[in-house]
Amino acid sequence: MQIARRTSDIRPFHVMEILARAQALEREGRDVVHMEVGEPDFPTPPWVVEAALAAIQGGGVKYTPAAGLPELREAIAAYYGQRYGVRVEPRRVFVTPGASGGFLLALGLSVEPGAGVALADPGYPCYANFVRLFDGVPHLVPVDAADRFHLSWERVSHYWGGGMRGVVVASPANPTGTLIEPGVLRELIGFVQERGGFVVSDEIYHGLEYGAASPTALEFSDEVCVVNSFSKYFGMTGWRVGWVVVPEGLVAAAERLAQNIFISTAMPSQVAALAAFAEENIRELERRRGLFRERRDFLWAGLQELGFGIPARPEGAFYIYADCGPFSRDSQDFARSLLEETGVALTPGLDFGKHRPEGFVRLCYTAPLARLAEGLARIGGFVRGGPGG
Amino acid sequence: MQIARRTSDIRPFHVMEILARAQALEREGRDVVHMEVGEPDFPTPPWVVEAALAAIQGGGVKYTPAAGLPELREAIAAYYGQRYGVRVEPRRVFVTPGASGGFLLALGLSVEPGAGVALADPGYPCYANFVRLFDGVPHLVPVDAADRFHLSWERVSHYWGGGMRGVVVASPANPTGTLIEPGVLRELIGFVQERGGFVVSDEIYHGLEYGAASPTALEFSDEVCVVNSFSKYFGMTGWRVGWVVVPEGLVAAAERLAQNIFISTAMPSQVAALAAFAEENIRELERRRGLFRERRDFLWAGLQELGFGIPARPEGAFYIYADCGPFSRDSQDFARSLLEETGVALTPGLDFGKHRPEGFVRLCYTAPLARLAEGLARIGGFVRGGPGG
Repeated sequence: MQIARRTSDIRPFHVMEILARAQALEREGRDVVHMEVGEPDFPTPPWVVEAALAAIQGGGVKYTPAAGLPELREAIAAYYGQRYGVRVEPRRVFVTPGASGGFLLALGLSVEPGAGVALADPGYPCYANFVRLFDGVPHLVPVDAADRFHLSWERVSHYWGGGMRGVVVASPANPTGTLIEPGVLRELIGFVQERGGFVVSDEIYHGLEYGAASPTALEFSDEVCVVNSFSKYFGMTGWRVGWVVVPEGLVAAAERLAQNIFISTAMPSQVAALAAFAEENIRELERRRGLFRERRDFLWAGLQELGFGIPARPEGAFYIYADCGPFSRDSQDFARSLLEETGVALTPGLDFGKHRPEGFVRLCYTAPLARLAEGLARIGGFVRGGPGG
Repeated sequence: MQIARRTSDIRPFHVMEILARAQALEREGRDVVHMEVGEPDFPTPPWVVEAALAAIQGGGVKYTPAAGLPELREAIAAYYGQRYGVRVEPRRVFVTPGASGGFLLALGLSVEPGAGVALADPGYPCYANFVRLFDGVPHLVPVDAADRFHLSWERVSHYWGGGMRGVVVASPANPTGTLIEPGVLRELIGFVQERGGFVVSDEIYHGLEYGAASPTALEFSDEVCVVNSFSKYFGMTGWRVGWVVVPEGLVAAAERLAQNIFISTAMPSQVAALAAFAEENIRELERRRGLFRERRDFLWAGLQELGFGIPARPEGAFYIYADCGPFSRDSQDFARSLLEETGVALTPGLDFGKHRPEGFVRLCYTAPLARLAEGLARIGGFVRGGPGG
């Protein structure tokens, strides 16, 4: 069988190579500090577990409506009112198999073959691959610390024209953890919409901010697709439940698409997600957010002390994008050597785009403080030991 | 926001209208016999439930590898050896969010924009919509009772050329419940492969056969994609776990695509699926298969007694595609009137293609025998009451 061309444009993640090597080292008995995987280390909270157990017992696990359990759609819609003061009709909310399913819907609804889509570089690599899946053309727009690593209308305007049809924005951002300024987001949405383009806003790290909270793109326009998930703030990765809010005019099309490409999202996971909005659960999540903030502060200070550059303050998610230029001219080489010599796993910049990836590595603070301290000590020994890489 | 053209080609299912009206009647206090929904009525078996409960307790619900839990991939691969005597390497098995996810992978890997894909008409409507999702062109090939409602190389050859690049075959078939003959399947695969085309075989109703069992397309070629699921024979609809077996040459591309578009399938659902292969569970599923066979026999005989035509013996799945021509010239009208007057819900042929849909309705035997008897009695009263529709 021949492979569709789109697929050969989709590259594997380099972090997978790092992860596989880290696991091989562990099988050999080495202790590995994992700072490469963007998965919170906390278990699913007990109230959420209880709700899922109750739903499963007796075996009544059936298809739900394609757009999700009505009570879950209502809870998500209500969350926009509570958290952002934004009115969202439940009919605009589609529950999906993870945020991944949300991107399938949002970009399947938006991307024509050949259409250009602007993406921040560095950025989350899957955006470009979702665009390729629908035979669109990802345009990687270089962003820097001066932009807080975010798109802006000025940046995008240099690339607009020539078939450009939309943008994906993401704040807090992966890999940098930086937040887009509300005014910058508002102007970017305005710029794109004036040109008839589409906006998809990835808000999966909302709730994991350590200073000011992020605004939702829905505060500035109803004519955007907003993707979110229960994986990060709600800490429910393995359950695979996300959602997308679509403009009113896309509701019918989203419904048809969801019926065809999902049928529905796993029912136990949806019931679990509904329980995640309970007050006592939100208290626990806020406690965890406090722990993430401590880790961020610790790692941020410690890396700078060792001589890493962190050009834009990471204010959300659980990532630090650190300039390893003082120690190596090749971040992939740096990451490999660090893993072999010290057993610390992190992700080379190459996974996040083409704009100076050789200068950066991403570190996740999804491990307890003691493990981060151990990792930092090993990194310190490594970079002080010589030129590295 | 504008909608991508592909989406406007995706039509809603007429059964949704029937289902919505049936639920409205129920809210008014009417008793409705549901013969419109293709979802088994049995609960998840207790062993499967127990496995899921154990996996959830403690909250360690995390991402799995993108291709699925290794032990589940191994169990699925082993199942091909036990059931079909076919050797499948676990690395060729990808666990997906339902069979829907399997079609996303298989067709995302295969369908170039503009590529023609041959589909049986009548057939499952989602195939055409998956093809449209990837900007391919579905070619509906009319099939009849003489073909047992299946594609054959002769049928397909009339349509080959002009950009035709592949076929989707499905046996047991929806909506007809008919099985493709092994020789016909083998020759069809040969015909398409000689012309460099791709074959996707939908085997989600395998295991639900009431005479001879279906062969898997993998018995005739390793160079096909085979989609299957835990929803039908294993009765696990709401868990949303399926799989796809891909040719060795597509493994790396499937891995990259799965990493990007799923991240992984819900972990509790995967653990539940693994338990579904236990011997005691298979015994229970075989008991259920016996019940489905009884229902098939009952409904098949009863409908013919009433004067419906059933031109090809339904030998699998849980569907009967009945010719309602003796009672109505418009099956959609027939379905609507039947529901309003008698409270029996079934699906008009229009959902399954363009080849004589006005002459047929689909009935599901996913309800207990007593309910099917009640439904049949009401249908009898309706068709004897006058010209109907």
